[in-house]
Amino acid sequence: MIRTPYLLFLGDAPDPLAAKVAQGIKDWRPENAVGQFRMEGCQADLGLTDMTLAEARAAGAETLVIGVANRGGVISPAWKKVLVAALEEGFDLASGLHNLLRDEPDLVAVAEACGRTLHDVRVPDVAYPIANGVKRTGKRCLAVGTDCSVGKMYTALAMDKEMQARGLKSTFRATGQTGILITGGGVPLDAVIADFMAGSIEWLTPDNDADHWDLIEGQGSLFHVSYSGVTMALVHGGQPDALILCHEPTRNHMRGLPGYDLPSLETLRDTALALAKVANPACQVVGISVNTQHMDEETAIAYLAEVEEDMGLPAVDPFRQGAARLVDALEQV
Amino acid sequence: MIRTPYLLFLGDAPDPLAAKVAQGIKDWRPENAVGQFRMEGCQADLGLTDMTLAEARAAGAETLVIGVANRGGVISPAWKKVLVAALEEGFDLASGLHNLLRDEPDLVAVAEACGRTLHDVRVPDVAYPIANGVKRTGKRCLAVGTDCSVGKMYTALAMDKEMQARGLKSTFRATGQTGILITGGGVPLDAVIADFMAGSIEWLTPDNDADHWDLIEGQGSLFHVSYSGVTMALVHGGQPDALILCHEPTRNHMRGLPGYDLPSLETLRDTALALAKVANPACQVVGISVNTQHMDEETAIAYLAEVEEDMGLPAVDPFRQGAARLVDALEQV
Repeated sequence: MIRTPYLLFLGDAPDPLAAKVAQGIKDWRPENAVGQFRMEGCQADLGLTDMTLAEARAAGAETLVIGVANRGGVISPAWKKVLVAALEEGFDLASGLHNLLRDEPDLVAVAEACGRTLHDVRVPDVAYPIANGVKRTGKRCLAVGTDCSVGKMYTALAMDKEMQARGLKSTFRATGQTGILITGGGVPLDAVIADFMAGSIEWLTPDNDADHWDLIEGQGSLFHVSYSGVTMALVHGGQPDALILCHEPTRNHMRGLPGYDLPSLETLRDTALALAKVANPACQVVGISVNTQHMDEETAIAYLAEVEEDMGLPAVDPFRQGAARLVDALEQV
Repeated sequence: MIRTPYLLFLGDAPDPLAAKVAQGIKDWRPENAVGQFRMEGCQADLGLTDMTLAEARAAGAETLVIGVANRGGVISPAWKKVLVAALEEGFDLASGLHNLLRDEPDLVAVAEACGRTLHDVRVPDVAYPIANGVKRTGKRCLAVGTDCSVGKMYTALAMDKEMQARGLKSTFRATGQTGILITGGGVPLDAVIADFMAGSIEWLTPDNDADHWDLIEGQGSLFHVSYSGVTMALVHGGQPDALILCHEPTRNHMRGLPGYDLPSLETLRDTALALAKVANPACQVVGISVNTQHMDEETAIAYLAEVEEDMGLPAVDPFRQGAARLVDALEQV
């Protein structure tokens, strides 16, 4: 686990979108975000207090999280200076960059000298078991998508937030870099060795109270030929009791796969549910989460009503409407 | 690729079963098996000529293949002596042991000094791409099972042998350690990083002649919760034109998963075909391969006839009956 709370490093972000990891932390775990650290020319601003390293340490920050994508894929000398100073100031570092912190000899040397930890959340640091399929106590909900990047993480985080607000027992279980940085822990599933994928998800979602829900972050899609194996490991390793179908209705082909049509919500429902029942015969599809960001409000609301009628399940855009109705559905399971 | 032909190292195999990798090489690629090397107390015998290292080199052997499981999971000092001598004699070494050759400093040092190569076929040595889903030329057949270890490799090898005998164009594509040692190359799919699984299978089965068939070795099962993600990557990365259903009818639960029932052949057919059509809408299920080793001849023949009638597809045990009827079915695609 990454030590919290964080100072969020925005570096020299060329635009707000480059800082979306930091934005996610601030949106979903504001209590983890003590302040922001911006360099000369930074074009992102989370609206948090700008702090020096020393100020953030004094305010309790334990880890400097790189919350911004790096241009050109390398850690620049300007960034390096800040990262070294942060280690010397007593921060751990956490990063989801492809360019690993541990591959930078100077950072490794300073971290060792200062007794600090470098977290590269793209790389698993656990020897996961092979899945044993044994039924676990507690309940699990998995978001599955018609495609990649349709809002599965957002949906699970929004449901977790709503459940916390209602005083229900829930835990968001991160399976990707951004989710791991937001919550401080999880499994970087796309980097796990094939034989251990399902086992890593069993490890991530262990026995729990009978009324506790794990909200498992989905990855990929059963219908995306590049990543469907990863999704399958979630469906079987997660043993979900409930599935939420996620969809983005304006795509004209699968992400990155010209010529590949998206499946219908009906096809996703039938395929995912049949496969999920192998691991958990009691699994149900309980709701639909639609990412309507590319529709105007009126079109979106009409579309959601139509889906709800066709599918006989609550259909909401949690960004527009919150996740209350999805949580209502979960409470019926 | 591993250099052929081989000298097959049987070591001090406690029984014939321990040498099943060597047996597989001898059965399926006899032209690769120059001879066998047995140590004091070896209880396996492939019926090949026993050779010293020097004799095997003189007979043209290029690689010493460890064709036997090691007791206790470690490479013993007695084995080590032979392996070092083999490197000095000019052999490369190839192994599918968990205990990697490359983790033995003395073997690494001698291999380097002699300019020889250590092949650990459990570990990928290629940076596989992410799958792009682009349709490839040539044809592909994938064996999918109701469970793990039901005869998928045997089926693909038997079909390849039959196709070669008929003068058809075919290549067995290995996706596991034994298959890789038998043929000298392939993808150790269970050891590939999640994001690259489907891409590794695209890499393994590239564009080919329109009338060429890749016979892809299956792994796991869509219904085995520990490994289903691996199977899914084969179904989507392999873009199969034809599926062969593989089954072992005497199991009372999924291998290693007490309480998990095997799916019916109908369920396997419907599930695998629907998923395969995502990557290749023209995919067909063409035949059924049944491992009847735990049935007597009469029961086996009756069972196969019943399956054939129920499913409307040729159903054979390629070990008892050969793979001719499966190849006939493939020729209709």
